[in-house]
Amino acid sequence: MARKNAFYAQSGGVTAVINASACGVIETARKNKSVINKLYAGRDGIIGALTEDLIDTNRESARAVAALRFTPGGAFGSCRYKLKGLEENKAQYERLIEVFKAHDIGYFFYNGGGDSMDTAHKVSQIGKKLGYPVTCVGVPKTVDNDLPITDVCPGFGSVAKYVAVSTMEAALDVRSMARTSTKVFVLEVMGRHAGWIAGAAGLAGEKSGDAPHIILFPEITFDEKAFLDRVRQCVDKYDYCVVVVSEGVRRPDGRFLAEADTKDSFGHAQLGGAAQVIAQLTKEKLGFKYHYAIADYLQRSARHIASKLDVDQAYAMGKAAVELAVRGNNAVMPVIVRHSDKPYRWGVGVAKLSRVANREKMMPRSFISKNGFSITAAARRYLAPLIKGEDYPNYRNGLPRYVTLKNEAVPKKLKEPFKI
Amino acid sequence: MARKNAFYAQSGGVTAVINASACGVIETARKNKSVINKLYAGRDGIIGALTEDLIDTNRESARAVAALRFTPGGAFGSCRYKLKGLEENKAQYERLIEVFKAHDIGYFFYNGGGDSMDTAHKVSQIGKKLGYPVTCVGVPKTVDNDLPITDVCPGFGSVAKYVAVSTMEAALDVRSMARTSTKVFVLEVMGRHAGWIAGAAGLAGEKSGDAPHIILFPEITFDEKAFLDRVRQCVDKYDYCVVVVSEGVRRPDGRFLAEADTKDSFGHAQLGGAAQVIAQLTKEKLGFKYHYAIADYLQRSARHIASKLDVDQAYAMGKAAVELAVRGNNAVMPVIVRHSDKPYRWGVGVAKLSRVANREKMMPRSFISKNGFSITAAARRYLAPLIKGEDYPNYRNGLPRYVTLKNEAVPKKLKEPFKI
Repeated sequence: MARKNAFYAQSGGVTAVINASACGVIETARKNKSVINKLYAGRDGIIGALTEDLIDTNRESARAVAALRFTPGGAFGSCRYKLKGLEENKAQYERLIEVFKAHDIGYFFYNGGGDSMDTAHKVSQIGKKLGYPVTCVGVPKTVDNDLPITDVCPGFGSVAKYVAVSTMEAALDVRSMARTSTKVFVLEVMGRHAGWIAGAAGLAGEKSGDAPHIILFPEITFDEKAFLDRVRQCVDKYDYCVVVVSEGVRRPDGRFLAEADTKDSFGHAQLGGAAQVIAQLTKEKLGFKYHYAIADYLQRSARHIASKLDVDQAYAMGKAAVELAVRGNNAVMPVIVRHSDKPYRWGVGVAKLSRVANREKMMPRSFISKNGFSITAAARRYLAPLIKGEDYPNYRNGLPRYVTLKNEAVPKKLKEPFKI
Repeated sequence: MARKNAFYAQSGGVTAVINASACGVIETARKNKSVINKLYAGRDGIIGALTEDLIDTNRESARAVAALRFTPGGAFGSCRYKLKGLEENKAQYERLIEVFKAHDIGYFFYNGGGDSMDTAHKVSQIGKKLGYPVTCVGVPKTVDNDLPITDVCPGFGSVAKYVAVSTMEAALDVRSMARTSTKVFVLEVMGRHAGWIAGAAGLAGEKSGDAPHIILFPEITFDEKAFLDRVRQCVDKYDYCVVVVSEGVRRPDGRFLAEADTKDSFGHAQLGGAAQVIAQLTKEKLGFKYHYAIADYLQRSARHIASKLDVDQAYAMGKAAVELAVRGNNAVMPVIVRHSDKPYRWGVGVAKLSRVANREKMMPRSFISKNGFSITAAARRYLAPLIKGEDYPNYRNGLPRYVTLKNEAVPKKLKEPFKI
């Protein structure tokens, strides 16, 4: 392979382990100096490439890079900025290639979900077309676990662990209080279309009667009567009821349980507040005292309770992406391949970006119990290994020692600025 | 001292470490068999005494008792049930003494906050009056940290650590996303009247510009204009703004930011939703995209990220309570005495229940910055040691191994039931 510089960017919602992937990319690039000269990162994701705002990762010490493995959030900044179709938005793709050319960038590593894999795929096409071929390799990441082909998406296992642990802990709390106080506790978790995160809460319950007693999945239309019947049954039987609700649950008319009027730049409705709707419903219709929690960003940034497997896989995906590129693979994404459930054995495979882009993987119906309120044994077999192992960050003065990089800018070479 | 049985009960909202106090009580009672014969626990707190629903803690193995140190929630159940004044509610106090007499209980250990210390104090008075003196010793507990005299209340340090760590982690997330997405992140924490928990979030920020950028304390009346000005300044300067809001913040007219219409059995208004009010305000008035999280029970049950100091102190208070009783002290509560800030040195002291009962300790105004939005150096000196040290539970299959006790009932001796 010709020796070229490389470009890495983080895309979309960040996770507790996306920096572990960055760490894998950087450390592996540094081991392949004969192929990859300098590794640049985009400040705030792909916007950094469009605006020629590149970060020189070579200015970061080996120690700082190693600390990325333990640091949540996106160390270089991320963005919600989707490049549209090649025809309708040619100028943006041409600009990308122009910046890559100016900085002798021949490798593009894009760390994100389905939308980002679509972008990476298009960049590989346009580069060839414009006579400046770029080797494009995706690095999978979504807390929603909705990428196809890969066994799991890095980022998901840690959210799953956070949600399962938090559900277990809060359940012990409400169980203690139920006699005279809170009967219903509702935890709202992420997952716009796919119920993977809500389903992971099911791991907190190990035997009959354990919380969570009800999981509300986005895959199952909300049935108010069935839900309230089940809440009442649980309170009758166990004296309390723990409900985990996905932000993406919809009413029979298709509206989200709590639909705010904001939309993000991908055109998705901004959600939040489903827990409150559910909690107030149980109060109003059944008279139960409630409490509710909304985990929001806490769940996806909780590096302090990350899954060790997830961290290892996130790192492995970053490493594999660079190795694939170095070996001449283009328009691909490394994936996690499951060899066995118990013990969980896994390896690294590869998928074409064309097969990954813009495809959402839903929870199979066979993972949700018949009544729609819990997970099945099959789901448990799939999910259980993903939260295994603890991988604590170091602490100083009682707080995790997370790293903030220097993020020094690479001098610009182009005359024209670019408006986002 | 005459050899008698003892009664232990957990009261009010539970914490991540109240069971560590229970562990201290039980293990120390077992070491003092010559004075304390059997140790009973109240099922669901003081209600267990009133209804003669006692749990025989002697049926629990040493191993199960040791595991209490690592298990959140209230292992015997707690309750929100306040015994009123001696005159207006004589029957309840008489019933307590009747149950104690029937089961040869001469020691009463009550693990709770100010209301519970008041009850313990009254029981010590009524027992004497009715000719059945009971040695009453409180065990301090509140996440709100609002008990007087003691340097800190067991339960608070772990919430403080959870809130500081979560604020730090979520801030890294929103900082990564701010360019194109979320500008304002709001975390709602507990603290009805005292801002200790909200203040602890301030520990997440170690240098100027670090999150949290704004803390809203219950001690400071909400000033919408000053708040919005500060949000705008932060977004201008840092590109994002992290706000921590206490559930107890009030508007100039005295209403809580988000006041629900439910009241608990102590007559306190049920709160929740302040984060949403604050977040929507920044959207409406400043146009910023927001996210908000409500930690609710997660914060006080998060044993997985408990403060080691807090666990140690919770245990020490349980141990000291039994030792005080065994040495003949009555109507007292052990307290934590701070000898120095840095290094933090502490010991165990003792306070009279009459001096603890029904007195709330507020954050001193000197702990809140002049503009009312952050903590001072003095607050930092006080708070910093309290979150120190990690004390991880054991894990199996990726989840903490929390213990559930057998909680076997002691056979009833009284003929009359008692209506709660």
